[in-house]
Amino acid sequence: MMGPEETAKAAGAAMYAADLASQRLGIDITEIGPGRATAVMRITETMINGHDVAHGGYVFLLADTAFAFACNSYGDNTLAAGAEISFVAPVRLGDELVADAVERIRYGKSGLYDVTVRRSSDGAVVAEFRGRSRTVAGSLLDPPTDDGASP
Amino acid sequence: MMGPEETAKAAGAAMYAADLASQRLGIDITEIGPGRATAVMRITETMINGHDVAHGGYVFLLADTAFAFACNSYGDNTLAAGAEISFVAPVRLGDELVADAVERIRYGKSGLYDVTVRRSSDGAVVAEFRGRSRTVAGSLLDPPTDDGASP
Amino acid sequence: MMGPEETAKAAGAAMYAADLASQRLGIDITEIGPGRATAVMRITETMINGHDVAHGGYVFLLADTAFAFACNSYGDNTLAAGAEISFVAPVRLGDELVADAVERIRYGKSGLYDVTVRRSSDGAVVAEFRGRSRTVAGSLLDPPTDDGASP
Amino acid sequence: MMGPEETAKAAGAAMYAADLASQRLGIDITEIGPGRATAVMRITETMINGHDVAHGGYVFLLADTAFAFACNSYGDNTLAAGAEISFVAPVRLGDELVADAVERIRYGKSGLYDVTVRRSSDGAVVAEFRGRSRTVAGSLLDPPTDDGASP
Repeated sequence: MMGPEETAKAAGAAMYAADLASQRLGIDITEIGPGRATAVMRITETMINGHDVAHGGYVFLLADTAFAFACNSYGDNTLAAGAEISFVAPVRLGDELVADAVERIRYGKSGLYDVTVRRSSDGAVVAEFRGRSRTVAGSLLDPPTDDGASP
Repeated sequence: MMGPEETAKAAGAAMYAADLASQRLGIDITEIGPGRATAVMRITETMINGHDVAHGGYVFLLADTAFAFACNSYGDNTLAAGAEISFVAPVRLGDELVADAVERIRYGKSGLYDVTVRRSSDGAVVAEFRGRSRTVAGSLLDPPTDDGASP
Repeated sequence: MMGPEETAKAAGAAMYAADLASQRLGIDITEIGPGRATAVMRITETMINGHDVAHGGYVFLLADTAFAFACNSYGDNTLAAGAEISFVAPVRLGDELVADAVERIRYGKSGLYDVTVRRSSDGAVVAEFRGRSRTVAGSLLDPPTDDGASP
Repeated sequence: MMGPEETAKAAGAAMYAADLASQRLGIDITEIGPGRATAVMRITETMINGHDVAHGGYVFLLADTAFAFACNSYGDNTLAAGAEISFVAPVRLGDELVADAVERIRYGKSGLYDVTVRRSSDGAVVAEFRGRSRTVAGSLLDPPTDDGASP
């Protein structure tokens, strides 16, 4: 039987293999453990508005990815029920962003996760995110089924 | 001098021309007026997780785009300060999504905008979003400057 | 069997009879129907901070009350899972506030309700609130049990 | 000239003296420092719904009070712009609640504060709150003026 650190790593590997959207954006999961995950992404030309500022949607997407890996790190299928984001500073073309997701609390089938997104060049915070999760039936570590369900 | 409907259309055109991120995702702004905008996007293979479910970040990104066009429709440079999203139903590969942004209230330099994201095939709601805006200096309809500021 | 309007009125009457907190604050439920409710409260001296401005917590409390009556209007025990509020304008001693709660969507056991709080003297909006509900076991219209559960 | 700890204590004392609402609910500010504050309140009969469960509005009100003291702890007049709360567990008659507010970030005139509300008997979390602040003109430590402005 796996311990919690091993379970988190196995769940993360299973999620990442299936998560083509994150792969195609060059998102890297650099750290995962029970209730936590770190996701890294560089802002490319496909992510900018005019004037070399990143579309806020991509900053959210990175935070949401870190959140998804953190809330699924126990191996149980867990969905993002919702999230709140505050945009703290603009993000520029070429910036590398690091999103650190940390579990605040789990209760019943619900959970809250805080994600801070920083620019890696100077550590400046660019966004603060709080995600709400909901655990549903099934495990990430079971053999796959064909019912179309996905975390 | 332009009326409010003309101002919204001119502001929207200026924003869209500069918004490479939205263009590259195939987002279309099908409607814009004072305090409102509609954005449409089809879910492609680059937006999916495993099992043909869209990454929630792309659903947020579409809602955030409709919000940005709605809150900038008066022609004043307006930033997304933050947003809240509830994910209502999963989104699949090939779904066309329609995000309708409507102003709820403006007060001082702040504003609140409600965005409902629906699947166009059957009108089912897939997400509800509320964005918080903040108007800053400058106009979208002024000749461009080179200070790097962007809505 | 009751229709939806009758069910809402019966559920509201059962809730109000038990809701000593709302009664003691002088909150009146002036309207209730399927997915909607209106709550009214006057700001008294016990609700003010210095300078005759109401504590924001009481504005939230009124909005939360309208939300609770709206989300329980179908007769099923429904809890407030969370809420988001934006404070739009200050509230003064003696102001009468009217909170209108309207259902935005229900999905599975979840629901979203928008509540606008206005000053009745001039209709000015003082707060915008969005509540998240979760339906649990039991009915408001069943004979009471002694398990201590409450919406 | 005062240091930051002294400024926080002086700002807190000035706020508490004027905050009749918090005083009348028996809220005690047991700790205040730069960017942080702790507020304590016992649930009385005036705060309950039926079945001895506290009205969620009072739990919010306590969290909002801790937030207000924390975000005003630098001595600058600071308003609550909005807040998000998740209700984690029910609260009963007689429970003593402790709300710990901690600054997450300040940027420009904005700030984010996380407040955790716990039951003091066993330390169980009953609510998680995130408040958004906005600093305005004026100081809490100036001689009072008669313009009616209040944090």
